[in-house]
Amino acid sequence: MRAYDLIQKKKEGKALSKEEIGFLVHGFTCGDIPDYQMSAFLMAVCFQGMTDEETTDLTLAMAYSGETADLSSLGALSADKHSSGGVADTTTPIVAPLAAALGVKVAKMSGRGLGHTGGTVDKLESIPGYQTSMPLAQFMEQTQMLGVCVIGQTQNLAPADKKLYALRDVTATVDSIPLIAASIMSKKIASGAQNIVLDVKVGAGAFMKTKEDAEQLARLMVAIGKLANRNTAAFLTDMDIPLGLAVGNSIEISEAMAVLKNEKQGPLKTLSVALAAQMASLAFGKKYEDCLIEAEEALSSGKAFSVAKQWIRAQGGDILCLTDESRFKQPKFVCEVKAEHSGFIHAIHAEQIGIAACGLGTGRMKKEDTIDPSAGIVLKKTVGDFVSCGGVLAVLYTDKEEQIKEAKRKVLDAFSFAEQEPEKSDLIMKVIR
Amino acid sequence: MRAYDLIQKKKEGKALSKEEIGFLVHGFTCGDIPDYQMSAFLMAVCFQGMTDEETTDLTLAMAYSGETADLSSLGALSADKHSSGGVADTTTPIVAPLAAALGVKVAKMSGRGLGHTGGTVDKLESIPGYQTSMPLAQFMEQTQMLGVCVIGQTQNLAPADKKLYALRDVTATVDSIPLIAASIMSKKIASGAQNIVLDVKVGAGAFMKTKEDAEQLARLMVAIGKLANRNTAAFLTDMDIPLGLAVGNSIEISEAMAVLKNEKQGPLKTLSVALAAQMASLAFGKKYEDCLIEAEEALSSGKAFSVAKQWIRAQGGDILCLTDESRFKQPKFVCEVKAEHSGFIHAIHAEQIGIAACGLGTGRMKKEDTIDPSAGIVLKKTVGDFVSCGGVLAVLYTDKEEQIKEAKRKVLDAFSFAEQEPEKSDLIMKVIR
Repeated sequence: MRAYDLIQKKKEGKALSKEEIGFLVHGFTCGDIPDYQMSAFLMAVCFQGMTDEETTDLTLAMAYSGETADLSSLGALSADKHSSGGVADTTTPIVAPLAAALGVKVAKMSGRGLGHTGGTVDKLESIPGYQTSMPLAQFMEQTQMLGVCVIGQTQNLAPADKKLYALRDVTATVDSIPLIAASIMSKKIASGAQNIVLDVKVGAGAFMKTKEDAEQLARLMVAIGKLANRNTAAFLTDMDIPLGLAVGNSIEISEAMAVLKNEKQGPLKTLSVALAAQMASLAFGKKYEDCLIEAEEALSSGKAFSVAKQWIRAQGGDILCLTDESRFKQPKFVCEVKAEHSGFIHAIHAEQIGIAACGLGTGRMKKEDTIDPSAGIVLKKTVGDFVSCGGVLAVLYTDKEEQIKEAKRKVLDAFSFAEQEPEKSDLIMKVIR
Repeated sequence: MRAYDLIQKKKEGKALSKEEIGFLVHGFTCGDIPDYQMSAFLMAVCFQGMTDEETTDLTLAMAYSGETADLSSLGALSADKHSSGGVADTTTPIVAPLAAALGVKVAKMSGRGLGHTGGTVDKLESIPGYQTSMPLAQFMEQTQMLGVCVIGQTQNLAPADKKLYALRDVTATVDSIPLIAASIMSKKIASGAQNIVLDVKVGAGAFMKTKEDAEQLARLMVAIGKLANRNTAAFLTDMDIPLGLAVGNSIEISEAMAVLKNEKQGPLKTLSVALAAQMASLAFGKKYEDCLIEAEEALSSGKAFSVAKQWIRAQGGDILCLTDESRFKQPKFVCEVKAEHSGFIHAIHAEQIGIAACGLGTGRMKKEDTIDPSAGIVLKKTVGDFVSCGGVLAVLYTDKEEQIKEAKRKVLDAFSFAEQEPEKSDLIMKVIR
């Protein structure tokens, strides 16, 4: 078999066999197939697409290109979730203990952030003492005992995906639905969970700009999951509706805890409850609607927050932080951003808010950068709210005084106003199972 | 400017500016733009194409990526020809002195062969003593004096084309008409001639399988030539009609000399006369039909052969070879291939004949291989001829006895027969100026 012939075959719009896809993925991962052949192949895929079968073969070849997590000791109850990127998506620290409170086993490996999108691992590390790495045996034991454990991704999980993604990122071959689906699902399958719930975001700032594309991606990932014998479901959610109001690390953890303590309503809670309920629905084969009710009860009864405290403590975190925010590292500067107009808030450009927060210290522009756990932005107004001129739109937290002016400007620019109250749209646009 | 953005732009089907194309070609040639980005770009070009203007910009950027030959001292009379590959295409050793006999200045740099397609330089080197390299001043002086000089290509002519072609060759991005046009025309423009005549072959064994594709390529190259201020014309010729009957090195030179001595009619002569006449027509601004008559006269008067002898002698070649074939190196084995059927010859698979000849020693499979000047195949029957069972189809020449059996089989397989005499088609399908 020759890579050349497989590039030519895809260029002609033909479907590759499982063996051919395996040859490409294995050869590329071990370095036998050079980057320049793989990038030509990836570009041909961008134009010619892949069948569901090809995409599944690609996903599985990538999933099994390195180590995989064996969660079989958790039986049929292991579950995982994935959100397709986004700013201020603090769902994991809520969903993980909430699903555990419903009896699901959440053995989760999360990523770090790069650029302006925050990573769950970075957020959890803002809790003093929280450990994001541990031996596999301990990871399994904690999940078995408490129903939840969240650590950083091991280095060798789906190495083919890492290498392919790095190449796609520099060759303008990222925006192919089969390649996106394979990348996401390969990591989920390698992570070992039997039940997988996906949150595919739709909107101007998201990977998927249209509902049609998002639905195609979601259906493809659900199909791959099923072909790989995993129970899989996907939500399409509207990214133009900000989920949480905090963008940062410790401030996002505080917001997540407020949801878990049942002190906070809104889109972040709505989506977290839906994701946890869907995980339980898949794991136990129960009706989704019934699981939604159970999830609400787990929040109102305090059970979910109780599980969260056990989880954070088990991983070495200071649980007093969860009730007393002053125990987090505090920022040197706190500064309000005030509206320069009156009107209804029509939209908030999430990416711009993320970039402004990154400038204040929330994220890394390079892998080596360190992050400031206390930095960030808390929005005081959201889409649909009315604000008077001079009213507080947001509060900035940072140690970098020199960054405040630019961040203020960016935050102001991120808000757009309308004279009339905008129409409300649904956060959850569709559920696909 | 970033290569990433230019890949994305081409992927979206947009046209690149001259500056953008220059950035890509220069960056790739000097190593700043990696292979994997260029191959993704090339694959996007295969799908999205290029405008004539983009293709011209690409051609010129490639042409001026290294040394160029300055033929300005030859005035408006310098002319060059190019044939788009083919087996048994012995036109250059005929066209070069024939055009010179018409007053054209043919300062030609030719290539070596790789694989089963022979190179003009290899063929000329079968003449004992013939020198294919010389200082540039001498090259110009000989062309000025005799009207013809044929040497090997300098190493640094259009290095961008060399590097791009090598990448296309391993990434299944060869068959793009704009990329083919730019590759051919960049070398012709770098070679410096004011008048360029192209022979674009059409047929099953050619790069261009259909007349439509060939015409598109020819029109594009003529347009590029004009945009680069070169007089340019192109022929579409039928590759399914074998030009000469010899496939090898010294045996092709002997066949070429037979044409120059006006001892041989047939397609090889027809095309050579047409190419030389077109070169003269462009160089002197005369009617092509008048130049055709002049070219015929130059053959019948002996003037063309006289120029050929002066040329070969000036480059150190033994001109006695041109009249006495026994002065060439002789092969150890000569062997007839006899027909196993009776019938009219319907087609001869030129590529198969070329591969069979290569096995006998005519070519190189690797750059390092040496070639046998005496090896080859002379066809004794051509398309349209009737042959009886047992009649001689071809004669093989080689030093490699062990290769004869396989070559015989290949030659037999290359012939296809029909019960009726096939219809005659025109060798020259179209002239584009």
